[in-house]
Amino acid sequence: MSSLSFEIVANDENGYARAGRMQLPHGLVETPVFMPVGTQATVKSLTPADLTDDIQASIILGNTYHLMLRPGADLVEKMGGLHKFMAWNRPILTDSGGFQVWSLGELRKIEAHGVRFRSHIDGREVFLGPKESMDIQRKLGSDIVMAFDECTPYPATFKEANDSMQLSMRWASECREHLPVNDTQALFGIVQGGMYPELRLESLKAISEIDFEGIAIGGLSVGEPKEEMMAMMDALAPHLPKEKPHYVMGVGTPDDLIEGIDRGIDMFDCVMPTRNARNGTLFTDDGKINIKNLKHAEDKRPIMESCNCYTCKNFSRAYLRHLYMAKEILSSRLNTLHNLHYYCDLMSRARNALVEGNWPEFRDNFLQRYRSEA
Amino acid sequence: MSSLSFEIVANDENGYARAGRMQLPHGLVETPVFMPVGTQATVKSLTPADLTDDIQASIILGNTYHLMLRPGADLVEKMGGLHKFMAWNRPILTDSGGFQVWSLGELRKIEAHGVRFRSHIDGREVFLGPKESMDIQRKLGSDIVMAFDECTPYPATFKEANDSMQLSMRWASECREHLPVNDTQALFGIVQGGMYPELRLESLKAISEIDFEGIAIGGLSVGEPKEEMMAMMDALAPHLPKEKPHYVMGVGTPDDLIEGIDRGIDMFDCVMPTRNARNGTLFTDDGKINIKNLKHAEDKRPIMESCNCYTCKNFSRAYLRHLYMAKEILSSRLNTLHNLHYYCDLMSRARNALVEGNWPEFRDNFLQRYRSEA
Ligand SMILES: [Zn+2]
Ligand SMILES: [Zn+2]
Repeated sequence: MSSLSFEIVANDENGYARAGRMQLPHGLVETPVFMPVGTQATVKSLTPADLTDDIQASIILGNTYHLMLRPGADLVEKMGGLHKFMAWNRPILTDSGGFQVWSLGELRKIEAHGVRFRSHIDGREVFLGPKESMDIQRKLGSDIVMAFDECTPYPATFKEANDSMQLSMRWASECREHLPVNDTQALFGIVQGGMYPELRLESLKAISEIDFEGIAIGGLSVGEPKEEMMAMMDALAPHLPKEKPHYVMGVGTPDDLIEGIDRGIDMFDCVMPTRNARNGTLFTDDGKINIKNLKHAEDKRPIMESCNCYTCKNFSRAYLRHLYMAKEILSSRLNTLHNLHYYCDLMSRARNALVEGNWPEFRDNFLQRYRSEA
Repeated sequence: MSSLSFEIVANDENGYARAGRMQLPHGLVETPVFMPVGTQATVKSLTPADLTDDIQASIILGNTYHLMLRPGADLVEKMGGLHKFMAWNRPILTDSGGFQVWSLGELRKIEAHGVRFRSHIDGREVFLGPKESMDIQRKLGSDIVMAFDECTPYPATFKEANDSMQLSMRWASECREHLPVNDTQALFGIVQGGMYPELRLESLKAISEIDFEGIAIGGLSVGEPKEEMMAMMDALAPHLPKEKPHYVMGVGTPDDLIEGIDRGIDMFDCVMPTRNARNGTLFTDDGKINIKNLKHAEDKRPIMESCNCYTCKNFSRAYLRHLYMAKEILSSRLNTLHNLHYYCDLMSRARNALVEGNWPEFRDNFLQRYRSEA
């Protein structure tokens, strides 16, 4: 029996947006959901308590590539799995390692059964393919395992995108063979195909024919213009199997998330709220603010008046600017806390709009305000 | 009327150790107490909630030198004072800036009315003397203000130590003149005199004759052997005015604190628990451990079994080592949380021993265990 059950609790009547409930071995995830990225067995600067109590994250993401190199999947398994190791008792999704390996560029070589690459930590040679990725993710013990694929570069010719997609589809089958349906880990297939709608649809068909518990869209947000990214989601939206959760990988800004929900997406992850926080960029309903700007030096207001995060309830922009200028660790922490709270709360607000039947108004109001100059 | 009231609640019958209660404008401080160092309006990596809820710190220290340069005392005052600026509503002690300026070495020049120096941030020339230090600490709004003094270098000849001490005593009087007894800020005088007991006693006499609310011992832990530091505390202990709180500045290791309490000291501050935490050194009753040591790689135990801090309740040494090796921000944070919890809890245990009348046993058992090889 599958470890994942998914039900839709509300729909936008005239579109693809929906609210759902996804039951996983470590708990319930209400969708749409944003998954904070915890690359090295930690969401940078935060504790599990921050993530549950303040941010109310219901699922986080871990990176197979980083964890296999340090501390190593065997060590994590010996310590009782990733949940126990990092003291996170809610669901975890792990990526396959494919995207990070692909990002290594000249340090990697793609072969028929996987990719050979050199560790960025100590230079040793490592091989990662569908089988290896499934084995590692099994040791990590994540609730959702991602299929191992090749992320098609951007730009790519039709032939390049097709060859890459076909390879990913073969690997997708191999992943399911190595990790059959079971009651502890769900497996998601990934749609590729570059920026060619016909390849995307062919890939979606191939993925839909395998009994994956969820459908992911990969290879977006890799440098293409936003219109191309939206065009791919538009092409796929009518064909995504409704009964399965839909996850677009590595996307994006708050307005991207709202646009994604509108195209039937249930799950998101992105390093933007965490990485930008450490660079002093903070998200609000009125767009981004840069905390190092001199205009915040004597500003007693919080980042966002209506935000209920610990940072906004206690600290002024003036203080946050001071921490940033003084290169204090607490700067990264308070900024990350706000940005992730903002992202997760935005998903909760979107969900409420769907449940209450006013999605179109919520979406339009949000996008107009977010995109107008503050 | 003074802003500080101090009462002794328990005494070691055969020595100088005592437990007390110090009432300050922002709250009660039970002594002996360790004050975490919050140099730049933050105890590095921690929030006020960590300090109150987990560490149970009752008072923290802020640094005048750093704050006057960035963000500046005027800005802090405009933001409502240091308590409001950093969202810390318990007592704060601020140092005078003298020690940091003294540490600048060749960048500073000592004059009759203070010290001229160049900012380490932007190189601009700044002057700081008794009057300026009092003005700045008034703007910061700390509960306890420290007198501006010169920290005598180590080693120093008798004449150098004497000249330096006499200058500090003149400045001590000027500080009290500029900041008379009032109901919002207490002022502590500082005993100097290098490593010469007769100068120390002369300095203590001078400080005792001014109506300071507390007595500090400065110029220790500046590079001298531990025996010299203890010898100075031994010389002063019988003569410290019993009705006032006694504070030894910048000291020290856990065993130094226990030795200090035994010599009548009530208050301590030191960067050691915070700085060492960021370098992976953790304190336990069995001495220090270095978390980056390979022997911790697969160790499922917490730092210290009997510790109740968030770190020890949730994470293994293996996980803490991983965070340290991966240079994760959370490493600094979890390590700092433990070390400060350890220091503050040690003061609480010492206090209980004093109240329960078994100080000598507690002291001897602690020192023996801490100093034996684990
Ligand atoms: Zn906030
Ligand atoms: Zn601990």
